Amino acid sequence: MRVVVPFGADRPKTRLEPVLDAAERGAFARAMLRDVLSALDAADPLDREPTVLADAPVDIGARVTVDDRPLTDAVGAALPAAPDDDPVAVVMADLPLVTADALEGLFASAGDVALAPGRGGGTNALVARDPDVRVDYHGASIRDHRRLARAAGLDWSEVDSYRLATDVDEPADLAEVLLHAPPESASRAWLDAAGFELALTGGRTGVTRE
Amino acid sequence: MRVVVPFGADRPKTRLEPVLDAAERGAFARAMLRDVLSALDAADPLDREPTVLADAPVDIGARVTVDDRPLTDAVGAALPAAPDDDPVAVVMADLPLVTADALEGLFASAGDVALAPGRGGGTNALVARDPDVRVDYHGASIRDHRRLARAAGLDWSEVDSYRLATDVDEPADLAEVLLHAPPESASRAWLDAAGFELALTGGRTGVTRE
Repeated sequence: MRVVVPFGADRPKTRLEPVLDAAERGAFARAMLRDVLSALDAADPLDREPTVLADAPVDIGARVTVDDRPLTDAVGAALPAAPDDDPVAVVMADLPLVTADALEGLFASAGDVALAPGRGGGTNALVARDPDVRVDYHGASIRDHRRLARAAGLDWSEVDSYRLATDVDEPADLAEVLLHAPPESASRAWLDAAGFELALTGGRTGVTRE
Repeated sequence: MRVVVPFGADRPKTRLEPVLDAAERGAFARAMLRDVLSALDAADPLDREPTVLADAPVDIGARVTVDDRPLTDAVGAALPAAPDDDPVAVVMADLPLVTADALEGLFASAGDVALAPGRGGGTNALVARDPDVRVDYHGASIRDHRRLARAAGLDWSEVDSYRLATDVDEPADLAEVLLHAPPESASRAWLDAAGFELALTGGRTGVTRE
């Protein structure tokens, strides 16, 4: 199995602008990417050196392919093209809660295509085992990916994981990192150093910054 | 194993006020409760007729215990009190994405206490297998439940399930129902009948109402 980790290096995490400046968004996005790569490295079996698929060069100590096309096109080009091609796992770079266990659940999933939904209609990870798998990351992609699998006559499964479902796009998502990231998490360490703390405000837990 | 489903019947789902009036919030909360009870009924093994633990009377076609104390006290009184007591699962009533599979993962979890986190620091389900398990549903309860387990010297585990993690409290959460509820879902049918549809708005998918 090949593993591809798409990473927006050009203008990372713009929806975190209310709480992080541009340099901080870049540093935090790289911390999340490091956490995903660490979890991939810890997942068993280990024959899956990942490729970071970035829209601009990034220095992260991993194999990087730069492809500045839209995500749908760049990921589409990385999927299996022929029946004998290795399966391909696509794991987003903004999943700082992810663990080796959660990834192993993804890799062990059934179907020509396995989909791990993200909050708000996204598709945070998938495994493509058939050359007819197609991706479309516009809009509510999980719905499109089901539709595309159905249209191609493929078997598909869904992976039920909160750790895979929790991508970090908006300020409220930072609370999830403080609550659930593994102890060794670079993302959590970065937020701690930047002065973020949990804020208990009646409803769901948010964050404050010192 | 006993199963307890806490249900706020008195003033259900107040944070949905921007999109649902009081009668609608009550009807939708009951639809979600029915979905949770249906998933419990479908989960194997079937020796777990649940008790709805409500803060006011509710007619739902299930065994109901009314306890109008705060949630922490009402659930605390339902937990195992002696070493020989059956384990107790506590499953919240606002989890319309839940399936029998997700519940079986909860029931099969390890530890004196197993915790299924909810988005924003909540604890959406747990299994208590020891009389020293305590609950505290104020604030970021998942953090408190870890702390209480540690303080009592208990082994605990966490259950990684998006379906268990997705409680419905706020309007944006309704999109998750439309995207992910099982086909037979009463909650989804209710939202469909009330005119809710997915709204694709750049970031995460939300809802609109006709």
